[in-house]
Amino acid sequence: MPVKAIEWINGKVRILDQTKLPTEVVYVDIDNPGDLGEAIRSLRVRGAPAIGIAGAFGIVLGIQNFQGNDVPGFLHEVDRVARELMKTRPTAVNLFWALERMKRVARQQSHLGVEGLKNRLLREAQTVLEEDREVCHRIGKHGARLLQDNSAVLTHCNAGALATGGFGTALGVVYAAVEEGKRIRVYVDETRPLLQGARLTTWELMQAGIDVTLISDNAAAFVLKQGRIDAIIVGADRIARNGDVANKIGTYNLAVLAEKHGIPFYVAAPLSSFDFSIQSGDQIPIEERAPEEITEGFGQRIAPPGVQVYSPAFDVTPHQLVRAIITEEGIIEPPFEENIAKLEKQLIHTQNSDDDLWEVTR
Amino acid sequence: MPVKAIEWINGKVRILDQTKLPTEVVYVDIDNPGDLGEAIRSLRVRGAPAIGIAGAFGIVLGIQNFQGNDVPGFLHEVDRVARELMKTRPTAVNLFWALERMKRVARQQSHLGVEGLKNRLLREAQTVLEEDREVCHRIGKHGARLLQDNSAVLTHCNAGALATGGFGTALGVVYAAVEEGKRIRVYVDETRPLLQGARLTTWELMQAGIDVTLISDNAAAFVLKQGRIDAIIVGADRIARNGDVANKIGTYNLAVLAEKHGIPFYVAAPLSSFDFSIQSGDQIPIEERAPEEITEGFGQRIAPPGVQVYSPAFDVTPHQLVRAIITEEGIIEPPFEENIAKLEKQLIHTQNSDDDLWEVTR
Repeated sequence: MPVKAIEWINGKVRILDQTKLPTEVVYVDIDNPGDLGEAIRSLRVRGAPAIGIAGAFGIVLGIQNFQGNDVPGFLHEVDRVARELMKTRPTAVNLFWALERMKRVARQQSHLGVEGLKNRLLREAQTVLEEDREVCHRIGKHGARLLQDNSAVLTHCNAGALATGGFGTALGVVYAAVEEGKRIRVYVDETRPLLQGARLTTWELMQAGIDVTLISDNAAAFVLKQGRIDAIIVGADRIARNGDVANKIGTYNLAVLAEKHGIPFYVAAPLSSFDFSIQSGDQIPIEERAPEEITEGFGQRIAPPGVQVYSPAFDVTPHQLVRAIITEEGIIEPPFEENIAKLEKQLIHTQNSDDDLWEVTR
Repeated sequence: MPVKAIEWINGKVRILDQTKLPTEVVYVDIDNPGDLGEAIRSLRVRGAPAIGIAGAFGIVLGIQNFQGNDVPGFLHEVDRVARELMKTRPTAVNLFWALERMKRVARQQSHLGVEGLKNRLLREAQTVLEEDREVCHRIGKHGARLLQDNSAVLTHCNAGALATGGFGTALGVVYAAVEEGKRIRVYVDETRPLLQGARLTTWELMQAGIDVTLISDNAAAFVLKQGRIDAIIVGADRIARNGDVANKIGTYNLAVLAEKHGIPFYVAAPLSSFDFSIQSGDQIPIEERAPEEITEGFGQRIAPPGVQVYSPAFDVTPHQLVRAIITEEGIIEPPFEENIAKLEKQLIHTQNSDDDLWEVTR
């Protein structure tokens, strides 16, 4: 059973501090939205789905000490906490999605009064977490169909249990295939600058007893050329209406390599990673990280003081390079624009006939 | 004036210890071939041309204490020292080229006797070093024609003054263009696992006052897509008869990216990097390095204990992806097989009419 990176325990958010892995397994209990924001910003909790979940619980933490029965004041406070949490990281859309969902529920259920709303919002955050786990299992099951027995997958960064409520997206596909009895080997890029592949993906796959081999990011092209890889599967931080995918820096590189070597390039992501408000990847803001993450990332200075650094945290893979997007509702194939539009229509239909509104715009 | 990474001073080889850069500038004086072999193996001295030079001086160190006047015994000792040095690193051909050159001179000048041979071999090693400096300047001059004023070059690893007798190959092109008054910006990949780009290329370019920006290897694709780069220039560890190029792991990746983005991909290398004995890159042995260079390279463990690692130090770029090879004799363009064969004929002609035989086979 893959590890759990985020849970709600005794009125606090318990996260597995991912900056400490793989050398230390440290859990941190967080009881206020400021600390939660810091945990998102510093990547103690990371991965698009997981920061969505963290955001939902961040709202709960932010309003749990609200006193009195001033419902408009309470809703105002929900909005204020959401605004603060939104500032933490700009690229992954799941955070905005989860915060909007919480705000919407608060507005729609305002008749419950302040104490009722507190309970309702806690339940909503727990639902976000539980749904994410279920969604990952469904992504895994759909994606596993794409993997043959005795095949090798290359992945990038960490789109695993650690990046979600549990089970993972890209790694969820691997876990599901292994559960079906398929023998799957995984190659993972170390994923500079923050080494989520080396530190996190190796760790969680080894915990789960899955055959994993670590390579430097630079070795991926050669490994593909050697014919070692049958499929590339990555996660996503945001997917545009046309199927363009923002994901960890280096993902676009792999997509180009996949095209060159005739290897399928798959993206595994929940529907909460789709941003139906943007037409293409050009509109996705790309977070730039501090130079020190490159020059001093591992306790030792590796570049001259004062060197100029350019460190985008994400890149955008054009949809033309994506063979398929694996979601909880099934596998989306090209033409993406058309098929994503169909999916959106279904979602709106489901929303309108559903009590708990499921909202994908922001 | 770029830095000097290898010199002969007072009967010793003085190297700039490149494992200490950029935080410390430490020179090491080496007086025996065992220590020199260790310096090559541990990359204190590195870069295909520089390890060729180091190999030539290694022969000198190995025979300088030879006693008596037994010329066959002396030649035997030359061969033995060369064999030991050959074991240090398998991919770069310049080492084998330099050792063969030294052995050949020893055999041809055996009439000089042991003391005469010692002097002659020292002179030959010094010639190897001086020629390399001159060759790099000629490479730079030829290559500079390919760079426009106000353009940006992406490079990988370190093919600079630190990798040669001085001035460099890929960076030699940049230095020469800047000397001609062109404004050149350089982007450099950090070049995992051993970070020669982050540690060495940034350092030597900053020393030379050249505008340099460090990026993670993963960012190269995105940087190309953003249109920031006008040309990619790399060095070479070995070039086959058909123009296939072995160079630092990640080079093939860049060549694929260059093709995808319509950006010229150039290789800058001396003729001593050509291996006329092999038809294609498939025949080039690829060194694998220790897992610890990836898992513990930053002074801190970054992957779980016991993780499987695959760490090829080089890859092979097929000649189809190479726009041109910049050598001291000019720019070689496709069809490479034909044009490299012409070059070889010229070399053999030069050799036959020359006293100091210039030998490219091994």
